[in-house]
Parts: sequence; structure tokens; C-alpha cells
Amino acid sequence: MKSNIVAWMQEGNVSIPTLLFSEYRNLNLNETELVLLLNIITFIEKGNEFPTPEELSARMTITIAECNEMLRRLIQRGFIEIMDQYSNEGIRFEKYSVNPLWEKLVDRFLLNHQVSRQIEKKTEET
Amino acid sequence: MKSNIVAWMQEGNVSIPTLLFSEYRNLNLNETELVLLLNIITFIEKGNEFPTPEELSARMTITIAECNEMLRRLIQRGFIEIMDQYSNEGIRFEKYSVNPLWEKLVDRFLLNHQVSRQIEKKTEET
Amino acid sequence: MKSNIVAWMQEGNVSIPTLLFSEYRNLNLNETELVLLLNIITFIEKGNEFPTPEELSARMTITIAECNEMLRRLIQRGFIEIMDQYSNEGIRFEKYSVNPLWEKLVDRFLLNHQVSRQIEKKTEET
Amino acid sequence: MKSNIVAWMQEGNVSIPTLLFSEYRNLNLNETELVLLLNIITFIEKGNEFPTPEELSARMTITIAECNEMLRRLIQRGFIEIMDQYSNEGIRFEKYSVNPLWEKLVDRFLLNHQVSRQIEKKTEET
Repeated sequence: MKSNIVAWMQEGNVSIPTLLFSEYRNLNLNETELVLLLNIITFIEKGNEFPTPEELSARMTITIAECNEMLRRLIQRGFIEIMDQYSNEGIRFEKYSVNPLWEKLVDRFLLNHQVSRQIEKKTEET
Repeated sequence: MKSNIVAWMQEGNVSIPTLLFSEYRNLNLNETELVLLLNIITFIEKGNEFPTPEELSARMTITIAECNEMLRRLIQRGFIEIMDQYSNEGIRFEKYSVNPLWEKLVDRFLLNHQVSRQIEKKTEET
Repeated sequence: MKSNIVAWMQEGNVSIPTLLFSEYRNLNLNETELVLLLNIITFIEKGNEFPTPEELSARMTITIAECNEMLRRLIQRGFIEIMDQYSNEGIRFEKYSVNPLWEKLVDRFLLNHQVSRQIEKKTEET
Repeated sequence: MKSNIVAWMQEGNVSIPTLLFSEYRNLNLNETELVLLLNIITFIEKGNEFPTPEELSARMTITIAECNEMLRRLIQRGFIEIMDQYSNEGIRFEKYSVNPLWEKLVDRFLLNHQVSRQIEKKTEET
């Protein structure tokens, strides 16, 4: 029983900005694309920085071909990017970066924040 | 600039068990249902324990009617439940509980955990 | 067994910026003050926004009197503040805000960030 | 401004069970030991699985010698352990495991949980 709780704990949590859930639609993402991104984030946190379409689609309701196409479009639309890295032994490897997603989310946040401050200011002036 | 980072922080994060992302398909949930559940969890964390179909669908790509139907089905299939609560002033109010979801997820976890331990044991015996 | 894991989950996690652990000393906080702040943050997350010195010291190795004095000093030094709030029924209540702590932490972050960018720039120029 | 928020995000959060804050005293840990453990957890999450006493004490208010002694005692008292690992290239390295801490915390949780259930049962019987 004890060991089960410890094992459960070790599976771990992934911490997601609540804004992603309230703003993904405004970023023109649908639910399947959002979950694909959440799965990439989860794989990265668990140490697999370049999950394959096979690994991703295996836990989703989409086929490998659909997953491939969706990844391609997310890169093209600027939500994720593939980075080249070199290991200590000089071996090249690829990994995903979701920084472009966070940049888009921060843009939305700053826009909303600015708008709400302008409304506040106008209300104060009236 | 400083105040923007503090404002960003205050939006907060929601902590999700990584297992939910790897197991939702095995729980017979699709991506839209998963995101609906994630939105309910996020609303609860932010203090709104009974978000309406209007509030939920407003941030999703589904209509209010579709959201309503999906909520009804998730209750029927035992992923969420509606609880009656009483405030300090004795006023009755309703709230969602996602405990049934966590119970299903824990069931999956214990099943996987047991299977992997049996495989380990068999490998040792060989 | 299952119910124990769900009960464990419900106790919940608190999400702390890793920077707080690397920078508290530079903010002139000692370990006891840091843990007092972490306990206030935890109480707030669990819905108790104004924990008493009794509640705080009960889980710490300090006395109520020491806790009281430490709270007073943290307010004076600008790490926490007490806010007046009004409930829907118009009843006044007090709560802690740890925003001043986050502001100090963001200041440190921006300072470090700026310094490291200047070093980068100088290295590039050389 | 935008890049500062993204940089802030990348520093990341560490997710701590709230029970650790309410129970560390009952586990016979003081605030300095708790913060040392939190720092080890934070280093591990950031990919440094075997932080040195120099790295740990640099962010704390204790000396390297005191940190060394505290680490030695935490191992002796069964809160952390040093594990031997082998890299893909067959090179041996050491890392900390905080599993013993989680096991102790789960023990406390199960004890509390059991006691509170017995009280509930007795109340029902009365």
C-alpha cells in the first residue's frame, strides 16, 4: 500500500499555466492540437525531448499519419520548433522546444492585461 | 515590466498527474472530453466550483449545446459528479467533483503497476 | 488501497518557483523565515488566507511568541502584507498577501537576467 | 518584456506535497533540514542529481562543513540515500534519492488517515 503511493508520486505531475486552458482557442488551437502539445510537454518533463509520432499517437485517438501531419502544421504555424543539440560526446540530436507556444501565450496575456488596464483607467477617468 | 511578471505568476499553474495524459485514451476519453475535464479542474482550482456550460464552451471549440451533452455523458459514464453543498449561511449550492476521474485513473495505475510487477517476477524466475 | 491514493492526491501539491530556493538567501531570509513563508503560501492555497501564529507555529519548531515576532518582522521588512477584504455579506476580514515576496523575487530575477545578458554581450564583443 | 516572462517561466516551478509542510516537524526535521531537502529536490528536478555541499550551502545560510554534516545525518537517519548509477557508456556515477523521505511522509499520512477514520467510525457508532 505504502509502496503504491510512493510509486504513484514518482509518476509525477506536470505544471501547466492556467492561461493555456483559457486562451488556447484564442490562439487558434483546437482540443486535439492542445492535447498533442500537452503530451509533448509531458514527454519533455519526463526526459524524452523528442517523442516520435508513434509514441505520441499511441496515447491519443489519432493515427500516426494524422499525428505526423499535425506536428508538421504546428511547426509551420509557429507553436513548436525542432532544435539541434550536441551531446557531450559531440553527437547531434534533435529536440522539441515549446517556447514558441509560451511566447504566443505571453503575447495574449500582455494584450489582455493592457486592455483591462485601459478599461480600468477609462473607468477611473469617468 | 516587474508588475507584468507578478501578474503572470498570479494567473497560476494547474498541476496535472502525468498519468492522465498517458492513460486518458485507455479510460475511453477523447481529446475534447479530456480538455473539458481539464477546464473543470482549472475552474475549480480558481475557486469556481460549478462552471456553467456557457463558461466552459466559451473557451472551447464546442457549442453550449455540445458542452451540455458532453457534461451529461461524463456524469453518466462516471467521470464527474455533482455534489450538493451547504454554505455557512445554510444556502444549498452545487459543485463538481472530479474524484470519480481520479479513482478511474488510480485503478488503471494499480492495474499497470501489478502487471509490470508480475512481468518482473516472471523474468526473475526464468 | 485505491481510496488511500485518491486521499493522498486530494492533499494536493503546492507549486513553488525554483528561484525562491536559489535566491532566498540573497533576499536576506533565513531558513526558518523561508519555511514560515512557505507555510503561509500553503495555507492560502488550501483556502485559509489568514492563518494564526498558533496554526503556523503548531507545524514548526518555533513557539507562538517567536512566530508572532517573525510575522511582524516579515511585514515590516516588506515580504508579506495584511489586506482588508469584504465578503459578499459586507463583513470585513483580513488576509495575507505574499505579493511583496514575489515582487522582491522578480527584482532579483531581472537583475540576474540583466547582468548575465551584459556578460554575454561583452563576451561577444571581445 | 515578453522575453522576460518567458525566461521567468523557464526557471520553472517545483511541485511539493503540501503534507511535507504540515508534517516535517512530526518527522523530526527542523527548518534548516527541510530547506536542505527542498534544495536537493530542486537540484534533482533541474537535472543535477548529485549537488555538492558547496552548491547546496552556497544558497543557504550554513557553511560547507555544516552542510556536509547535515547531509551525513540525513542519510544516517534515513531521509535520503546515495544511489550508484551507470551511464550508457558504463561510467559509474552517484545520485541522491529522496524516496526514503517520501516513504516516511506516506507512513505519517497513512497513520493520520487511519486514526481519523477510526474517530469517524466511533462517532458514527455513538
